[in-house]
Amino acid sequence: MLKKPLFIDNLQYSNWSLEVFEQMREANLTTVHVTICYHENFRQTIENIISWNKFIELHPDLLMLARNADDVRNAYKKNKTAIIFGFQNCSPIEENIGLIEVFHKLGVRFMQLSYNNQSLLATGCYEETDPGVTRFGKQAIKEMNRVGLVIDVSHTAEKSSFDAIRYSDRPIVISHANPNWWHESKRNKSDALIQEVTSNGGMIGFSIYPHHLKNGTNCTLESFSTMIAHSAEKYGVNNLGIGSDLCQNQPDSVVEWMRNGTWSKEMDYGEGTKDSAGFPIQPEWFKKTSDFPNLLVGLKKVGFNREETSKIMGLNWLNFYEENFHAL
Amino acid sequence: MLKKPLFIDNLQYSNWSLEVFEQMREANLTTVHVTICYHENFRQTIENIISWNKFIELHPDLLMLARNADDVRNAYKKNKTAIIFGFQNCSPIEENIGLIEVFHKLGVRFMQLSYNNQSLLATGCYEETDPGVTRFGKQAIKEMNRVGLVIDVSHTAEKSSFDAIRYSDRPIVISHANPNWWHESKRNKSDALIQEVTSNGGMIGFSIYPHHLKNGTNCTLESFSTMIAHSAEKYGVNNLGIGSDLCQNQPDSVVEWMRNGTWSKEMDYGEGTKDSAGFPIQPEWFKKTSDFPNLLVGLKKVGFNREETSKIMGLNWLNFYEENFHAL
Repeated sequence: MLKKPLFIDNLQYSNWSLEVFEQMREANLTTVHVTICYHENFRQTIENIISWNKFIELHPDLLMLARNADDVRNAYKKNKTAIIFGFQNCSPIEENIGLIEVFHKLGVRFMQLSYNNQSLLATGCYEETDPGVTRFGKQAIKEMNRVGLVIDVSHTAEKSSFDAIRYSDRPIVISHANPNWWHESKRNKSDALIQEVTSNGGMIGFSIYPHHLKNGTNCTLESFSTMIAHSAEKYGVNNLGIGSDLCQNQPDSVVEWMRNGTWSKEMDYGEGTKDSAGFPIQPEWFKKTSDFPNLLVGLKKVGFNREETSKIMGLNWLNFYEENFHAL
Repeated sequence: MLKKPLFIDNLQYSNWSLEVFEQMREANLTTVHVTICYHENFRQTIENIISWNKFIELHPDLLMLARNADDVRNAYKKNKTAIIFGFQNCSPIEENIGLIEVFHKLGVRFMQLSYNNQSLLATGCYEETDPGVTRFGKQAIKEMNRVGLVIDVSHTAEKSSFDAIRYSDRPIVISHANPNWWHESKRNKSDALIQEVTSNGGMIGFSIYPHHLKNGTNCTLESFSTMIAHSAEKYGVNNLGIGSDLCQNQPDSVVEWMRNGTWSKEMDYGEGTKDSAGFPIQPEWFKKTSDFPNLLVGLKKVGFNREETSKIMGLNWLNFYEENFHAL
């Protein structure tokens, strides 16, 4: 049993700063999977990687890059936060399958097949109809399997997600979402899909983005933790983790951009509404990355033992990285 | 009645050279719509535009750019060939709706919503399932309508094509394909779709690419011309034209690239086969751009009068440009 906690948040998109990095350390976050793309093309994504490389170079006492599970264990030993790069869209690979290997070499370990809209690979959860994974998508999945770039279906539509599991030789993940049986929303996932993902060795990271929570901003830590307890009964405890979807210190212009990118000339409010268009207010118990340890308190209260909380708070993700970040 | 012919070929993708440009003049081709993109992204397409701008600058006696119907009439008077830029894919606009206006300003007048595969706008004719025009696609169609960039569904799947007609306030075209009732193929079009396109003011340009022809390379000029005569009976004579799809002097590596782009690591043979993977051999009566006048001979033989042949050989396209190349 580890003496100090090994915490992993498998999805954040904060307004990165020294303040945030120091809070990660304060929270004992060994690893954070950070989103480095929503709509960006290849070249723009390279700029985002350059920015992150600079953060890591400038704060060697706080940060390091995580390319594999060993890097996470090193970060744990050295009291640093290991940063995993991930894409919420496939826009960086444009129409070029060769860019999958290029990005893996640059440190990218997760890629969503689509972000809300139809992509070149798969359908997003906001489209009316979902025909499933495309011709390019089938080949991209094979290539992602080969190099060790994990398939994420958090914003992907249902049939495309099932297709991804079928075509993929390796487990896939839902990095940040909750079950629809707890809170119905376009972004939350069906019981059948979570069952299929987790029973095939994949992971679900529970989200604390208010639109994914029962009672939104007013969701209690107890309600959230009880949902995880029910999930453990349904899917077992070994394939559950956290993907908080925290967007700390982001201005509302950022959520507008997430929803509309550069593809829309009309205003799309996504999970929000015209009257409530900005970022929703986080629940009291998870306002910032330094609140991460509160989740441990919640899990304990609903009856998880130490081994179980360690798994959900980080070890399950670490185990998943061990198996899935390297080439076949 | 015009004294000399006004010929328009509304789709070619040849290996452009002085030889080809001189043949265009030899054939009295007043206008050729040239493909400047299959898979290219924004930046790569800009390079293709630069190459074409150079061709036009270097051969002012042979070529000029066509931005509208007046330019075509000028080219006719000055014995030049007016070049219209067009995309066979929406890859150049990437995820940015603002690039539609940018490309229109640079001279682009046709854009296919998809090329064989699923695109961000619509489904291609090689995908298994066609859910129709996407969320981005609906907005892109509106923007194309606004600026006067014509929607082309030549390589788009059936439901997406019907959706395009439904969402578009302006006529759309099938720049290069033939009816499936004459020769069944993935790229040829259903009677219902051609009916819907033409009865809404749109155009079909008949293709002379062997895979779209009855009996392929051995298709006779009579068979091709008879198909056009039947089309005139079914759809009227005012919405028919030529879009030959001629790929003169192209090496086989080009058709391999058209089919596989940079998205595929497996070999896709498209309309060809492993044993016959290259460009198919053109029929005797249409091997090069200077063979264009042969079509007039064929049309006359199957009974079209002078007014009708003038329309099909060019004036219908000119009329379409007049209405559809300018902003709303």
